[in-house]
Amino acid sequence: MGARNSIVLFFFMLFALSSASSRHKNKYKPCKHLVLYFHETVYNGTNAADATSAIVAAPQGANLTILAPQNYFGNIVIFNDPITLDNNIHSKPVGRAQGFYLYDTKDTITAWFGFSFILNSTDYQGSINFIGPNPVFEKTRDISVVGGSGDFFMHRGVATLRSDAFEGKYFFRLRVDIKFYECW
Amino acid sequence: MGARNSIVLFFFMLFALSSASSRHKNKYKPCKHLVLYFHETVYNGTNAADATSAIVAAPQGANLTILAPQNYFGNIVIFNDPITLDNNIHSKPVGRAQGFYLYDTKDTITAWFGFSFILNSTDYQGSINFIGPNPVFEKTRDISVVGGSGDFFMHRGVATLRSDAFEGKYFFRLRVDIKFYECW
Amino acid sequence: MGARNSIVLFFFMLFALSSASSRHKNKYKPCKHLVLYFHETVYNGTNAADATSAIVAAPQGANLTILAPQNYFGNIVIFNDPITLDNNIHSKPVGRAQGFYLYDTKDTITAWFGFSFILNSTDYQGSINFIGPNPVFEKTRDISVVGGSGDFFMHRGVATLRSDAFEGKYFFRLRVDIKFYECW
Repeated sequence: MGARNSIVLFFFMLFALSSASSRHKNKYKPCKHLVLYFHETVYNGTNAADATSAIVAAPQGANLTILAPQNYFGNIVIFNDPITLDNNIHSKPVGRAQGFYLYDTKDTITAWFGFSFILNSTDYQGSINFIGPNPVFEKTRDISVVGGSGDFFMHRGVATLRSDAFEGKYFFRLRVDIKFYECW
Repeated sequence: MGARNSIVLFFFMLFALSSASSRHKNKYKPCKHLVLYFHETVYNGTNAADATSAIVAAPQGANLTILAPQNYFGNIVIFNDPITLDNNIHSKPVGRAQGFYLYDTKDTITAWFGFSFILNSTDYQGSINFIGPNPVFEKTRDISVVGGSGDFFMHRGVATLRSDAFEGKYFFRLRVDIKFYECW
Repeated sequence: MGARNSIVLFFFMLFALSSASSRHKNKYKPCKHLVLYFHETVYNGTNAADATSAIVAAPQGANLTILAPQNYFGNIVIFNDPITLDNNIHSKPVGRAQGFYLYDTKDTITAWFGFSFILNSTDYQGSINFIGPNPVFEKTRDISVVGGSGDFFMHRGVATLRSDAFEGKYFFRLRVDIKFYECW
């Protein structure tokens, strides 16, 4: 092999190494792609009319109207949040995000989600089921799409979560970028 | 194209549109199919001997022996229910349904389930794992079969839930029609 | 068919029947295989510094610092446990096991798990998502691997749990043998 080819090979290997962590995103093309937002207001004892979620479990010594003291560790929250096509909470909802999450770290905020999107719009009818971890302070977090019904019958994929907004501790909005890699 | 062919095409398209929502049910044939029932008696403070489930979490102000006031919103229930081949609670059980559900809507009753069937009969040995939403008042609700063990190793599919019986607030029976589309 | 062939066929069928329950383990070869351990210390009211998990829900009459009286039935535990490559709790962690389990049987100890492994080592970067039943006293228990991210993008498989150690009621170690059968 000549010197030139060796150099080409060296740069090729360097590139291969540097792109290893993102190789899957490049390699596979989704068969379906959705971007949606959901908006959550946690019940804090005084906002019953607006709240879309509630703390229903807490560790010893904590209560159900104040997020637990160690980065919310030990709280379980049940939610039923409006889903919209853009990041405007006043846009017409296209469905509901229903399920739960729990906070599972004492020294930072990470959550674990199990929930469904129930979509009911002109474009999509059906449900999408998700589970996975949500380390809140990372820029993007990937959870699993494990199945669905209606237009999402038997689908699998990956949903990338981004924090689109926070207002205090009791309101947040998530951007959910859903890429299906198995469509039926 | 002649007039006759145009008319045929028109009706064909009409048919295609009208059947779009149920197209998946027609298109795919299950590789395995099971119909099972499970029977649940929720603990209400006085039925400890018969109860097969218990409320273990509740929203602020509610307790663990009375379903929460706003359509049970905020309750988490852990269950371990007998599974039978028909809708008779006295039939010999073929296994147990084990896991949890949570109620996630204030103005109607919808639940979100995460559970397993542990089957132990002459016909089937193994577990089936489910997650998904259960909007109780819809005639049928589809949840995801995300995996299994034993005879259901790596299987995926869809389970259609139907409310087979209600007796008051603390007893219900679900009919579960499980269609596997990925068998191994 | 001669008598000899009939006998051969008979033994072949007998063998086929006897090996039915383990046929999947022999038939399929994993595309990726990991063995990991995780170590859990449940909060018992006095071990806050060491605890890696906490009881956050309990049935009526029980509390959050003592496992519930009927084989822990009705407890939900949130955990965030170190993962190691061997069964030594002092080994360098390669990640964290984060999620929850619930106890769902009154007359023996069985749990239902929903959690993720978040791996961060030189060998593996990414998350693995699990759900399934864990009947604690069986030698091995198979749960489902339903998806993942990073190096485990879209993976599916089966994880076999074994109790590697118990110390009293509030410490245990699980050995997790993960076999992926769908790699991407």
